[in-house]
Amino acid sequence: MAQRRSTSDLRVRRTKERIRNAIRELTLNMPFDEISVQAIAQHAGCQRNTFYDHYTSKYEVLEEMLGELVDEIEAVTTAHFSEMQQHSPGEIPPTFTKLFEVFGRDIPFYRRLFGPEGSSIFTARIVNALEQSGMRHAQYWSNLLPEQTVPNEIAFRFLSAAFVGMLAWWLESDHQYSAEQMGVFLWRMEIRQRPS
Amino acid sequence: MAQRRSTSDLRVRRTKERIRNAIRELTLNMPFDEISVQAIAQHAGCQRNTFYDHYTSKYEVLEEMLGELVDEIEAVTTAHFSEMQQHSPGEIPPTFTKLFEVFGRDIPFYRRLFGPEGSSIFTARIVNALEQSGMRHAQYWSNLLPEQTVPNEIAFRFLSAAFVGMLAWWLESDHQYSAEQMGVFLWRMEIRQRPS
Repeated sequence: MAQRRSTSDLRVRRTKERIRNAIRELTLNMPFDEISVQAIAQHAGCQRNTFYDHYTSKYEVLEEMLGELVDEIEAVTTAHFSEMQQHSPGEIPPTFTKLFEVFGRDIPFYRRLFGPEGSSIFTARIVNALEQSGMRHAQYWSNLLPEQTVPNEIAFRFLSAAFVGMLAWWLESDHQYSAEQMGVFLWRMEIRQRPS
Repeated sequence: MAQRRSTSDLRVRRTKERIRNAIRELTLNMPFDEISVQAIAQHAGCQRNTFYDHYTSKYEVLEEMLGELVDEIEAVTTAHFSEMQQHSPGEIPPTFTKLFEVFGRDIPFYRRLFGPEGSSIFTARIVNALEQSGMRHAQYWSNLLPEQTVPNEIAFRFLSAAFVGMLAWWLESDHQYSAEQMGVFLWRMEIRQRPS
């Protein structure tokens, strides 16, 4: 019984994996909004009904992929809090580079999702995840906040949207700069020491 | 002849106006991507063919609306260059408030376009317009740039995407803050004087 259960679990996992890969590959060639479940099933080598055994819509698949990405972003941003407090403005905390590296693992896919023909839902969710993570740990990011009051929600929306804007630029730019260089640029923009 | 021509011009202008209004109103109730030309024509009280006499697609209509908005943004940002150079960090230049006011004129419509169910193309075009305007007049914005080098393209993408992120937050937030208050918050985030 346990044996049968695990074989079936494995089959489910593989089908879901094929469906996710199909979405990824189709996204490279057409706007996400125009991809049909029929096309996904065909590309994944399964029936349309099989798709609906596992997901209610293509948005649910994207949501699942997003969920994992968001967990990873949360892990990256929380792993480096101590850096944020200890380092001096001249040093760049690795968090910023790592954020670019996460998306750098699949540039063609993310370029599409964040681009003009991508998914607004996807972009909004990533901005929101960064914003929420920032707000939960606001004290660690205090050196990025202005001296005068700005509501936390607004400050973290500003910083998160700015990062995602730079990320979209990078994904479109054919690797002109490394993730590390982008981390440096992000840091300089975030911390902005100006001539006084 | 001149009389007949101007009557016909007026008719064209009115039809286009009705088509644009139809798109605006339909956008309030459904994602932009799901609006059909059939529905637009019906809502505008004209034939589908009449739509195609004036536009090739719904995207062309959005593009036309965007073009006017972009011209207005460019006018707002260039009208206030002198402020940017003269004012001290304690004063807030009216440019920032005016940018929120432009979008504040039709909050329900822009809330949809910038929201998760909105149009990525629309958001990307506004970010791009701000970015291009910034780059063309980079010397005027130099007090927003970091002391150390960041390529202009990246710096202005950062600043533009950050503004649009704050704008989307504001449009969703049911007028909790006025355009003027948002201008102040934007200014504080942009100029960020931190305790040294």
